[in-house]
Amino acid sequence: MKKTNCLLLLMLICSMAIAQSAGNISDPNKQPVSDGYKPSSVNQPGKEYPQVNAEGRVRVQISAPEALKVQLDIGAVKYDLVKDENGVWTGESAPQDEGFHYYQLNIDGASVPDPGSLYFYGASRWGSGIEIPATDQDFYALKNLPHGQVREHTYFSKVNNSMRRCFIYTPPGYDQDLQKRYPVLYLQHGGGEDETGWSCQGHANLIMDNLIAEGKSLPFIIVMDNGTWRMPEQARPRQGERPAGPWPPEGWADGFMNTLLKDIIPMIDAEYRTLADPQHRAMAGLSMGGMQTRVITLAHPEMFSHVGMFSGGSISMEDVDKSPAFKEKVKLVFISYGSRELENPRRGPWGDPAENTQKLKEAGMNTHFYVSPKTAHEWQSWRRGLYQFAPLLFK
Amino acid sequence: MKKTNCLLLLMLICSMAIAQSAGNISDPNKQPVSDGYKPSSVNQPGKEYPQVNAEGRVRVQISAPEALKVQLDIGAVKYDLVKDENGVWTGESAPQDEGFHYYQLNIDGASVPDPGSLYFYGASRWGSGIEIPATDQDFYALKNLPHGQVREHTYFSKVNNSMRRCFIYTPPGYDQDLQKRYPVLYLQHGGGEDETGWSCQGHANLIMDNLIAEGKSLPFIIVMDNGTWRMPEQARPRQGERPAGPWPPEGWADGFMNTLLKDIIPMIDAEYRTLADPQHRAMAGLSMGGMQTRVITLAHPEMFSHVGMFSGGSISMEDVDKSPAFKEKVKLVFISYGSRELENPRRGPWGDPAENTQKLKEAGMNTHFYVSPKTAHEWQSWRRGLYQFAPLLFK
Repeated sequence: MKKTNCLLLLMLICSMAIAQSAGNISDPNKQPVSDGYKPSSVNQPGKEYPQVNAEGRVRVQISAPEALKVQLDIGAVKYDLVKDENGVWTGESAPQDEGFHYYQLNIDGASVPDPGSLYFYGASRWGSGIEIPATDQDFYALKNLPHGQVREHTYFSKVNNSMRRCFIYTPPGYDQDLQKRYPVLYLQHGGGEDETGWSCQGHANLIMDNLIAEGKSLPFIIVMDNGTWRMPEQARPRQGERPAGPWPPEGWADGFMNTLLKDIIPMIDAEYRTLADPQHRAMAGLSMGGMQTRVITLAHPEMFSHVGMFSGGSISMEDVDKSPAFKEKVKLVFISYGSRELENPRRGPWGDPAENTQKLKEAGMNTHFYVSPKTAHEWQSWRRGLYQFAPLLFK
Repeated sequence: MKKTNCLLLLMLICSMAIAQSAGNISDPNKQPVSDGYKPSSVNQPGKEYPQVNAEGRVRVQISAPEALKVQLDIGAVKYDLVKDENGVWTGESAPQDEGFHYYQLNIDGASVPDPGSLYFYGASRWGSGIEIPATDQDFYALKNLPHGQVREHTYFSKVNNSMRRCFIYTPPGYDQDLQKRYPVLYLQHGGGEDETGWSCQGHANLIMDNLIAEGKSLPFIIVMDNGTWRMPEQARPRQGERPAGPWPPEGWADGFMNTLLKDIIPMIDAEYRTLADPQHRAMAGLSMGGMQTRVITLAHPEMFSHVGMFSGGSISMEDVDKSPAFKEKVKLVFISYGSRELENPRRGPWGDPAENTQKLKEAGMNTHFYVSPKTAHEWQSWRRGLYQFAPLLFK
């Protein structure tokens, strides 16, 4: 036993105090570094790198004594690292926008996660993430106030004939007043992400806990499921080619729409204390999830009364003309983008989102258009989108 | 908008159908490879590598065109990979025991996670894991039957003056019969692991769902918190030295004991529908968590009636003599090990676990001793430990 116990206890010596993958419970022992770089708030417990400075530059460091070339790959740019006499590579990026960014390291041609960071699912992989402190980060900070829960919910989907899982946010007090029933927001991730995105990267739970504690939002349930859409093999364009026909193709959102309408909503209404009517049911999503929200709520306006799309297109008058019940039944249309997404004229299959939203308002709908300052197609835009959207819901 | 949408939708093309980090929802499209190697069940969605064959060998593959040396680091052995003409490195390990193993890749001296695997917290880092299919894997398989939930629970700890989180397993039916109250098992991870271990690597939730569905276990709540213990800086032995004085040092478990007794248990009894008495309260843990269970239940036998230690020592007659209330009040002592841990005589600070457990039985206590066949100090031993332990609880 001695040998095992020693091994074991030497492991204990290395073990670090709590510091967690929610990314919000920071290690108070982390010390700022002399030149203003500090460990990222989403580092693994006890890891000194990656670091961030006040300009938003990212500094990474990794020991790779025999490597020929090591790079930091962030924001679609690769930055060369420099090796010291001990074989430790260090390097910095240009300033990054506030908020969360995915990144990877490249070691002699291999793209790998940074062993210092926590990992997040995005860009169709589990990989590294970093947090550039934002001026408004207080709205998603972990505070000592009543917290809701995020529940991993496993279920059988008849539509897909398979087991699936979703995450359910139940607001503070859900387990105390067992008579109370709640509205529900169905909240979808983007392409290449999954059902973990809105709580891990998006901090949807903390945003809601803070809004509810301040009396700015009503408490409601949030359902975060997996809306991943994969194009049928035969329809996929070859690399570098443009897809043939309309894009996205007709019917692309049908799979998730069926799962949502036939499996997820009935299950949630059966197993949670919901207000199970369209007046108390919202759908929103980011990027691909916003596009799904558009298709699904236009096709089924009898199911939803509040609609949100974050960096995922907008609703046009043409859409509404084709779905008259949408105009009649939907009480709120919320559209948001990051400001950097709007820097170039944005005219695509669904038109300019600001113009579209203004026209809906002029036609008598309750619309809101929000622009997140100085952010792009990234999580800080979507956190802010939810923060603006939630207080408008179910009122 | 066009540019963004195209980028976005090309990402969608890459996105894979659901396949999840719980590690149990496998992608039905994964095809076996010709020489008997198949993708690991805990691969990232759509990733073909790492793979496992019937002998339990692990095959990894990574593109690293400019690398000089790439190794697979598993089971404390490093295996060289071989580079092909495209710069893709491939290699295999010796056969591994059934069950879950942590591993890393080594690229020109850098120890990094494999970009193909899901990631797990162990060895004091988030890193790669692989699953060697086990002959008895059915007991932790994801099945179409009633499932409990795993809830992320955030709370303020007065003892630590900080925010913490734990995971709570609530059994199937918890949200249906709102009058029913449940016993509670406090279940601890090992050194270098955290509160995610028992559900992510251990599949405690699936083990319970399956046992409950088969009528083999009563339903109960499981609380999985973070028991990480860090030795005070001044007391740490230097690398390579043996610790001075008794090991582990007196009082090493006091920190978590205080958190458990003063914060966690009162919170759980206040916020969940528990049977809040010692007859319906159990504590168990693996490795370091077993050692904590020993110290805490011997010090507070008035709090717990059922005790489990998986690869984490045992309870001796000397222990019981010093804590007479333990013998009087504790209704079950369960001790387990992996068979490979017992291959060498195991006599350490707490004596031989089989002998100790036998002596307690002879002294009139209800004890169980279980040995997991052909496994070492690894998760398969602990999954099996929980599977044997749970049916004995609260009966």
